[in-house]
Amino acid sequence: MTAETPHRRAGGRAARQAARLHAHVAGVPYLTRALEPYHLLSDEGLETLEANAETILEQVGLIFRGDPDAVRRLREAGASVDDGGERVRFPRGLCRSIVQATAPRSYVQHARNPDRSVVIGDPYTVLAPNYGSPFVRDLDRGRRYGTLEDFRNFVKLTYLSPHLHHSGGTVCEPVDVPVNKRHLDMVYAHMRFSDKPFMGSVTHPDRARDTVEMARILFGSDVLEDHTVITSLINANSPLVWDATMLGAARAYAEANQATLITPFILAGAMAPVTAAAVCAQTLAEALAGMAFVQLVRPGAPVILGSFASSMSMQSGAPTFGTPEPALVLFTMAALARRLGVPFRSGGNLTASKIADAQAAYESAATFQPTILAGVNFVLHAAGWLEGGLTIGYEKFILDADQCGMAGVFVRGLDMSPNGQGLDAIRENGPGQHFLGTSHTLANFETAFYRSETADNNSFEQWTEDGGLDAATRANAIWKRMLAEYEPPPIDPGVDEALLEFIIRRKAAFPDSDV
Amino acid sequence: MTAETPHRRAGGRAARQAARLHAHVAGVPYLTRALEPYHLLSDEGLETLEANAETILEQVGLIFRGDPDAVRRLREAGASVDDGGERVRFPRGLCRSIVQATAPRSYVQHARNPDRSVVIGDPYTVLAPNYGSPFVRDLDRGRRYGTLEDFRNFVKLTYLSPHLHHSGGTVCEPVDVPVNKRHLDMVYAHMRFSDKPFMGSVTHPDRARDTVEMARILFGSDVLEDHTVITSLINANSPLVWDATMLGAARAYAEANQATLITPFILAGAMAPVTAAAVCAQTLAEALAGMAFVQLVRPGAPVILGSFASSMSMQSGAPTFGTPEPALVLFTMAALARRLGVPFRSGGNLTASKIADAQAAYESAATFQPTILAGVNFVLHAAGWLEGGLTIGYEKFILDADQCGMAGVFVRGLDMSPNGQGLDAIRENGPGQHFLGTSHTLANFETAFYRSETADNNSFEQWTEDGGLDAATRANAIWKRMLAEYEPPPIDPGVDEALLEFIIRRKAAFPDSDV
Repeated sequence: MTAETPHRRAGGRAARQAARLHAHVAGVPYLTRALEPYHLLSDEGLETLEANAETILEQVGLIFRGDPDAVRRLREAGASVDDGGERVRFPRGLCRSIVQATAPRSYVQHARNPDRSVVIGDPYTVLAPNYGSPFVRDLDRGRRYGTLEDFRNFVKLTYLSPHLHHSGGTVCEPVDVPVNKRHLDMVYAHMRFSDKPFMGSVTHPDRARDTVEMARILFGSDVLEDHTVITSLINANSPLVWDATMLGAARAYAEANQATLITPFILAGAMAPVTAAAVCAQTLAEALAGMAFVQLVRPGAPVILGSFASSMSMQSGAPTFGTPEPALVLFTMAALARRLGVPFRSGGNLTASKIADAQAAYESAATFQPTILAGVNFVLHAAGWLEGGLTIGYEKFILDADQCGMAGVFVRGLDMSPNGQGLDAIRENGPGQHFLGTSHTLANFETAFYRSETADNNSFEQWTEDGGLDAATRANAIWKRMLAEYEPPPIDPGVDEALLEFIIRRKAAFPDSDV
Repeated sequence: MTAETPHRRAGGRAARQAARLHAHVAGVPYLTRALEPYHLLSDEGLETLEANAETILEQVGLIFRGDPDAVRRLREAGASVDDGGERVRFPRGLCRSIVQATAPRSYVQHARNPDRSVVIGDPYTVLAPNYGSPFVRDLDRGRRYGTLEDFRNFVKLTYLSPHLHHSGGTVCEPVDVPVNKRHLDMVYAHMRFSDKPFMGSVTHPDRARDTVEMARILFGSDVLEDHTVITSLINANSPLVWDATMLGAARAYAEANQATLITPFILAGAMAPVTAAAVCAQTLAEALAGMAFVQLVRPGAPVILGSFASSMSMQSGAPTFGTPEPALVLFTMAALARRLGVPFRSGGNLTASKIADAQAAYESAATFQPTILAGVNFVLHAAGWLEGGLTIGYEKFILDADQCGMAGVFVRGLDMSPNGQGLDAIRENGPGQHFLGTSHTLANFETAFYRSETADNNSFEQWTEDGGLDAATRANAIWKRMLAEYEPPPIDPGVDEALLEFIIRRKAAFPDSDV
């Protein structure tokens, strides 16, 4: 055979179907990486970026908008304040020393099912689904506003996926519930329809406190004091602004010893300079200031350094994904977080495509593979993201989750055990004889290769006979089957009742509002 | 903004169209990597695999089938022979020392247009299109056998792509030409419709010699003696067999000082043990034996260590792509080749999908990104591959080439120049002000981000208005436009005439045959 066109071996349809039934690999609570992170930038380059971040903190400073308590805490720690009392500048090294003094290198986020608790930090990777989309899409109904039913569906699908470790937070916006009350239904859905760890509300400090109260009901009122059970997403208002909503939510969680993802959210060219090295320095500066604030509120409260960086179309201003520049930022920020000594959040399966087509997959992989190779510790948007985050897709979710499963195998690295080296098998087999029936193959074939849940590896003829379906169409059948077979994890009826009573009481306490 | 759903900025349709016209980045003849390769396996692990390869060469040996001259050369170099004179075993270190003594670390493959000549070796990466598919596919006509017209079309598309550096070889099989004569038309197509470097025929030693003769006409009869102008694909018949066809073709090229890709082609579980570390050791052993043979034929003739490893469905026996295991092999083999000191070939945009859907893109990226991060020097199948290599797709080709363009930006790494660091821009801009109109942005925006030729980054509404097309449908319009606008590179009319005369003479010299 001279051309690289492997011949296919025939296989029975029944065998293929049986294989598909057993296609799910056993779930693990999170990934343990045996591989070193990829080193993209030299230590000298990283030191330069750290110095640049300190220069930004020192000479430019940040605005802490509408939160005098935050400004007071930072001033008392050594920062200087001017411009109406909101512009805060930091002596070189101040934020770094505050963070390094008390922020943990890693922490456990406890799940209500202890087998689902995750460690966030090195050498671990925790994968969570899409976050924040107002729209949902599936092949049957197209694109539409998300509802609470959609929200619950994605919580259920995440619960069922062996490749996702964390239930996430606002998997989609349930726009059929008033803005000022939907957090109660969202948090309850995570608590009731899953037993994986979850994220809390950040759209108002009161909603963060509601999340904490519900967690106290679920876990026991004393547990939170020395257990982290919530990790929440706090985005900077880049460039160089932290606003009162985000600071207030971060404060509420920190006071309760709960974790926050301190994430500058940057479309390069709009919210930062257009060049990657500048994005890195600014991201580090913003994150250092935010994390320092959290450590001043409660020393030791877990913080994750987050980075979300997108390129943009300089013609239309639209954010673009899957381009090389954000991947360069991701690798670099991961190394900077590791040097600082805090967990790192970035990445996901990001795309600007409106549908789960080839663009969506290429672009997603162009962020997700760097995510894995950089050794990101907490990955939001690992499944479902479409259209620059405006939409979560049911089929995209299924396809992405399959990629998450592959990452779980990849990070284990090369099996260098005697069985993995397989030298005896080569010795016994000799030249010119295939290995299909050898004892080594028979002993290993069940676990030798990742079995994709969504790929079609059949012959062209078989694929045609099966309807000539594309990947998205196959994924459509998968999520429907998963939801049809879903059963909720057990919960103490008394706890469930108390949660529901809390929600009813809170919803009755103030009028509906859509802000 | 709390959810990570970037707002879009409006942009004129005319602006978008103008941008698309300028979307092509300037072509470079090959990629120069500023990034270090990813180190997946420790030096200790690599040493173990090298020792295992030597054990295979020593204790198991290889069959050199039907080529007494090859066996004689190897025996005279120190190998032992038994089993009817074809089973060759090598003292530990023999093959390695033969290769390291004379094989070049890198070489120039000259193109007839000197601006298109490529360097194959570190720190460079050369991208070439798909190879060997009997079928072609496009959205208009579906899947069908390839023809000479298709072959020429893909040569033209590769010539036109700024992201592909090498014209490749059997981009598809032109099945409308007899098997024993189609090499003449294929080689001529590369020579006439492109001016990029190309590969030669390997399906019979005579066809290899025809390729060399045509190259002598094109480049001048004396040039080949000290210039490499052909690189050709020599596949092992794994496990542990080199056959007379491949050895004969390799000999023909080596005698003319032309380069060969010595590539074990392994479906793990069939042609090697099912475990990745065993695949690596066997691949290294097979490649070392093949490269040693070439060096004995002509010391110093360029050889590339090739690795093509696929997982397989252990249920159906079908090859599978985009799984984590072949990526582990790829990273490991790249490191082994680097330690040996020869250029490395692997990777590509590989998939088992029948169409250019999400499966095709995820799977392709799962091979192509490791290809880039491993620092592969010569990449076959970088564009067009579908269906495990049985088909080359027109739309897939366009989509893959766009990914090749992104890789070209990524490998340049982070720009740490003062302009890249952008510290002054952050200083001047201050907190809370966007960067869209700053002088730094204006000075950099034309080149700041890779501009995809195939992605749609528009709003959902604009995308819908434009027809709601998927990526493959957009790619369909692109390849048609490229072929419509194609103009052949100039060629000396006398040379062209001599090539055509040679082809007519050779075709008349023996009857048509389909073997």
